[in-house]
Amino acid sequence: MKESYNEMTLPKIDTELVRDEIIKFIRTEIERSPYNKCIMGLSGGLDSTVVAYLTCEAVRKENLIGLLMPHKTSTRDVVEDAKFIAKNLGIHIEELDISPQIDAFKENHPDDDPRRLGSKMVRERSALLYYYAGIYKAVVLGTANKSEIYLGYFTKWGDPAADILPLTELYKTHVRQLAYELELPTNVIEKHPSAGMWPGQTDEDEIGISYIDADPILYHLIDLKYTPEKLIKKGYDPDLIKKVVKRISDSEFKRKPQRKTKLPKTIFKK
Amino acid sequence: MKESYNEMTLPKIDTELVRDEIIKFIRTEIERSPYNKCIMGLSGGLDSTVVAYLTCEAVRKENLIGLLMPHKTSTRDVVEDAKFIAKNLGIHIEELDISPQIDAFKENHPDDDPRRLGSKMVRERSALLYYYAGIYKAVVLGTANKSEIYLGYFTKWGDPAADILPLTELYKTHVRQLAYELELPTNVIEKHPSAGMWPGQTDEDEIGISYIDADPILYHLIDLKYTPEKLIKKGYDPDLIKKVVKRISDSEFKRKPQRKTKLPKTIFKK
Repeated sequence: MKESYNEMTLPKIDTELVRDEIIKFIRTEIERSPYNKCIMGLSGGLDSTVVAYLTCEAVRKENLIGLLMPHKTSTRDVVEDAKFIAKNLGIHIEELDISPQIDAFKENHPDDDPRRLGSKMVRERSALLYYYAGIYKAVVLGTANKSEIYLGYFTKWGDPAADILPLTELYKTHVRQLAYELELPTNVIEKHPSAGMWPGQTDEDEIGISYIDADPILYHLIDLKYTPEKLIKKGYDPDLIKKVVKRISDSEFKRKPQRKTKLPKTIFKK
Repeated sequence: MKESYNEMTLPKIDTELVRDEIIKFIRTEIERSPYNKCIMGLSGGLDSTVVAYLTCEAVRKENLIGLLMPHKTSTRDVVEDAKFIAKNLGIHIEELDISPQIDAFKENHPDDDPRRLGSKMVRERSALLYYYAGIYKAVVLGTANKSEIYLGYFTKWGDPAADILPLTELYKTHVRQLAYELELPTNVIEKHPSAGMWPGQTDEDEIGISYIDADPILYHLIDLKYTPEKLIKKGYDPDLIKKVVKRISDSEFKRKPQRKTKLPKTIFKK
C-alpha cells in the first residue's frame, strides 16, 4: 500500500525549538572557546544569512564580524545583499575582493575546469576567514547544511572548514523554513542557492536536482534508513532516487574522516 | 627515588615494524579510495621525505606525484633537496611557485605578523595540493607528526588537511629514527626542521624548545598520562615542562574537533 504524498514529504521542523537550540549551541561554543568574538563569511545567501541572524541572538552583535569575499565575476547582488543584511543586523563587515590572488593563480594554472577554479575560490575564502580570525581573535562560524554535505556539494577543507557548524543537522528546505520564521528578506530566502563559484552558477543546476526534490529523498535514505527500493515502492520518482543515491555514494570519500595510521603498542623497543 | 636518565628518555621505536605498518596502511587506504594515484607536497624536509619513501614502497612509484611549492623567499635547498629526493625515488614532480598569488594577497592585506602570512602560505599549499589532486584524480597524503600536533605547531586546515596522515602517531624524534633506517640523505635528516613560513624560519626557534627536549616530555604527558608534577619529580627540567604544558594547553582549541549542533529528536512537527 502506497502512503499518501503528505507522508512522503519532508516533515516540517519546529522552527522555534530549532532556533532556540541553535542559538544556545552558538552561545555555549563561543563561551567555551578562547575567544569572545566570532567571524563568518557573508554571501548574501540563505545559509550565511540564517547563521548571521542566529548568531546575533546568541552573542552581542559587536562580537560578530562578517567578511564579504566577492570575486570580480561575482554578481552584484552578492555584495549588495550581504551589505544590506549586515546593516540590518548592525554588524561590522570587511569587504575583501579575492580577485587579485585568484587571478594571479589562474594566470599560472590555466585549467579549463570551472569547478576546480570554483573550489580554489572556496578554499581561498576559507583561508581568508582564518586569516582574519587570527587578526580579530575570533571563532570561525561555518554555514554548511545537511543537504550539501550528503549530496557532496561542498569543497573538502573549503566551506566546511570552520570551528563551529550550526546548520549541519538541517536540510536546505529546513534552513529555508527557519529563514521564514526569522523574517529574513524575501529576496534572500527565495534566491537560487549558489556556491558563488562562477557567474550565474546555481547549486541546483550543478547538482541536477532541486533541494525541494532532493531533501525528502535524503531524509528517508539517511534519517529513516530507507532502502532505495522501499522509496520507489512508496511512489517516489525512481530517476530522482537514482540521482540522489549516486550523489551520496560518489561523495562518500569526501565525507570520510581522515585516515591515520594506527600503530600497535609493540612499536617501542624493550 | 629518581629514575635514571635513560628511563626518562623517549623509548626508541622498532623501525622495521613501524615501517611495515605504515606501508601497509598507505597501501590499504589508497586501495580503499576511489583513486589509485596519490599526491603530496615535497619540501625537502624530514617528514615529507619519509612519507615519500614509504609511499614508494606502498604503491608503484608512477602513482605518486610530488608537488614542490616554493615561495620566492624559500631557501634554495627547499627545491634542490626535494628535486634530489624525487629523482632518487623516480617520481613525477610539478614545481609550482606560490609567489604570484601570495604576493597579490600580501599587497592587499598589509599585516606585519609573519606567522599569519606564513599560515596563509601553508593554506595556499594545501589548496594547491587539492587542486592538483583534482587534476590527477589522486588521494592527498599529509605529513603532520605527533610532536607538531600536540605542540600546536600546525596551521588549522593547512598542513593537516589531507586524506591520509601516515605519521600522526610518531613524534619528530621517531620520524628521524625511521629516516635513518630508511637511509635518507643525511642532509635531509639533519637539517633544522622548518615549516617554510619565512626565510630562515625553524620550528625549534618558533616553539622555543627543541624536539629532542620536547618529545620525551610529550611522550610522558600524553602517552603515559604523567602529571607535570610527576615529571618534575622524575628529574625533568621544570622550565621545559612548563613550556611544553603551555604549548599543549594553548593549542587545545586548534585540535578540538569541529563543533556541530546536536538537535533533539523532537524537532519535527507531528
